[in-house]
Amino acid sequence: MKHITKLVVRPYECDSYNHVNNAVYLNYLEYARMDYLNAIGFDYNGIVAAGYYLYVTHVDIHYKVSAFLGDALSIESEPVQMKAVSGTIKQTIKKEDGTISAEAMVTWACVTHEGRPSKVPPEFMVEGLKPTTGSN
Amino acid sequence: MKHITKLVVRPYECDSYNHVNNAVYLNYLEYARMDYLNAIGFDYNGIVAAGYYLYVTHVDIHYKVSAFLGDALSIESEPVQMKAVSGTIKQTIKKEDGTISAEAMVTWACVTHEGRPSKVPPEFMVEGLKPTTGSN
Amino acid sequence: MKHITKLVVRPYECDSYNHVNNAVYLNYLEYARMDYLNAIGFDYNGIVAAGYYLYVTHVDIHYKVSAFLGDALSIESEPVQMKAVSGTIKQTIKKEDGTISAEAMVTWACVTHEGRPSKVPPEFMVEGLKPTTGSN
Amino acid sequence: MKHITKLVVRPYECDSYNHVNNAVYLNYLEYARMDYLNAIGFDYNGIVAAGYYLYVTHVDIHYKVSAFLGDALSIESEPVQMKAVSGTIKQTIKKEDGTISAEAMVTWACVTHEGRPSKVPPEFMVEGLKPTTGSN
Repeated sequence: MKHITKLVVRPYECDSYNHVNNAVYLNYLEYARMDYLNAIGFDYNGIVAAGYYLYVTHVDIHYKVSAFLGDALSIESEPVQMKAVSGTIKQTIKKEDGTISAEAMVTWACVTHEGRPSKVPPEFMVEGLKPTTGSN
Repeated sequence: MKHITKLVVRPYECDSYNHVNNAVYLNYLEYARMDYLNAIGFDYNGIVAAGYYLYVTHVDIHYKVSAFLGDALSIESEPVQMKAVSGTIKQTIKKEDGTISAEAMVTWACVTHEGRPSKVPPEFMVEGLKPTTGSN
Repeated sequence: MKHITKLVVRPYECDSYNHVNNAVYLNYLEYARMDYLNAIGFDYNGIVAAGYYLYVTHVDIHYKVSAFLGDALSIESEPVQMKAVSGTIKQTIKKEDGTISAEAMVTWACVTHEGRPSKVPPEFMVEGLKPTTGSN
Repeated sequence: MKHITKLVVRPYECDSYNHVNNAVYLNYLEYARMDYLNAIGFDYNGIVAAGYYLYVTHVDIHYKVSAFLGDALSIESEPVQMKAVSGTIKQTIKKEDGTISAEAMVTWACVTHEGRPSKVPPEFMVEGLKPTTGSN
């Protein structure tokens, strides 16, 4: 199951090359993951209130084709791995014509407020965090 | 040869977790690369004026330990590969006590303003872009 | 005539107070002005290609009520003054219930690429840049 | 008494005009205020821990001369007003040759975590928050 988030490139997101700056893609990916978490019914505010954080631990991103001011982008987010205390989401940023602008694998981990790795507490676990069986 | 850039974490770089947001690390890395290019005598403005861009094509970053407001960070930048039209720089972000906050491999490519991959023109090539022999 | 731009607060836009950082409001306002310029048929890329920039010269912004992650905001943009080489746009950021989050007056000026103030060339002038007669 | 913060313009802070984006100036001003608060011995973390926030309520900024990549900027911060629950700081951003890049008046207010205006608790009050007598 791929969740899709749409956004339009804003002026201040473009750098002196007139294209979206490489760091801004990570902003886009974070926004898309939040949108995806909402869509699968994950209680983000609840888990933070309960004493946990979701940290990003690894990002592997390939930049393929520049995005420009006003481009309407679609970001696909899809869980591809779920382990005890962490998970990996594949995120693909596409331009309006379907061209891939960037592809990323983002790994997150659940930690306590003291910074210790922890399982996602069962009461916050939702199906959408896990890869669809057989899909990968 | 490792080039070192120092900076202090600013308030607006911290997110609701009170630590430096994952995308901001890419801003730090870009700033450190620019600092490194200056240090090795690379004529960045010159190569842009001559019709070329240096694009980031790949970032692989591991986040290890959070950085917080006011933290004095050191960023080591070291070329580890130089190919025909691209190169890779290893960048390590350290906290004041030497703890590694994040480690990244950043690959860049030289492209023309039309977006075609191109060799770095010889007149802009400097030794510091290449890995030290035998160091990796 | 008030032009309206809608957006949703993203996670990386919130700071350690868990609300939208004060500088991010200026990002929102810039995005809304770009949206407004598109809506009134102003040829932004054309005027830049013709050798002009639109610079922001003054921002006067009052922050009223914090905006938070996920808030759906509406930004009203309305021209309130048009002089020889500059203009002023009133921009109001509202929350979903109509509460005003921030109010700003933003003044811009047309300059040449060399930085000299210049009239907006007649071929780029559009009615929507001017205040509605009698409306203010 | 003017407190001075120094910084160098970073690549990702410049927009498609190749100059520092207008919103980034507010980032610079925030960073300089934090630096100023540290310098006057204001216990920022302490006041937040005690249940208070310092909110920015008003920014009035004039942009004079563009700043560019690599520019070494100095930001002067000087308190010009201290009222019961709020204060105003004048901040001036200068280029290396002394040219003023931007001038701002920034007003802040002390609020409780519930958002009610509050006096700065006496135990956190420091002289440096107040204007020097007769200086304005």
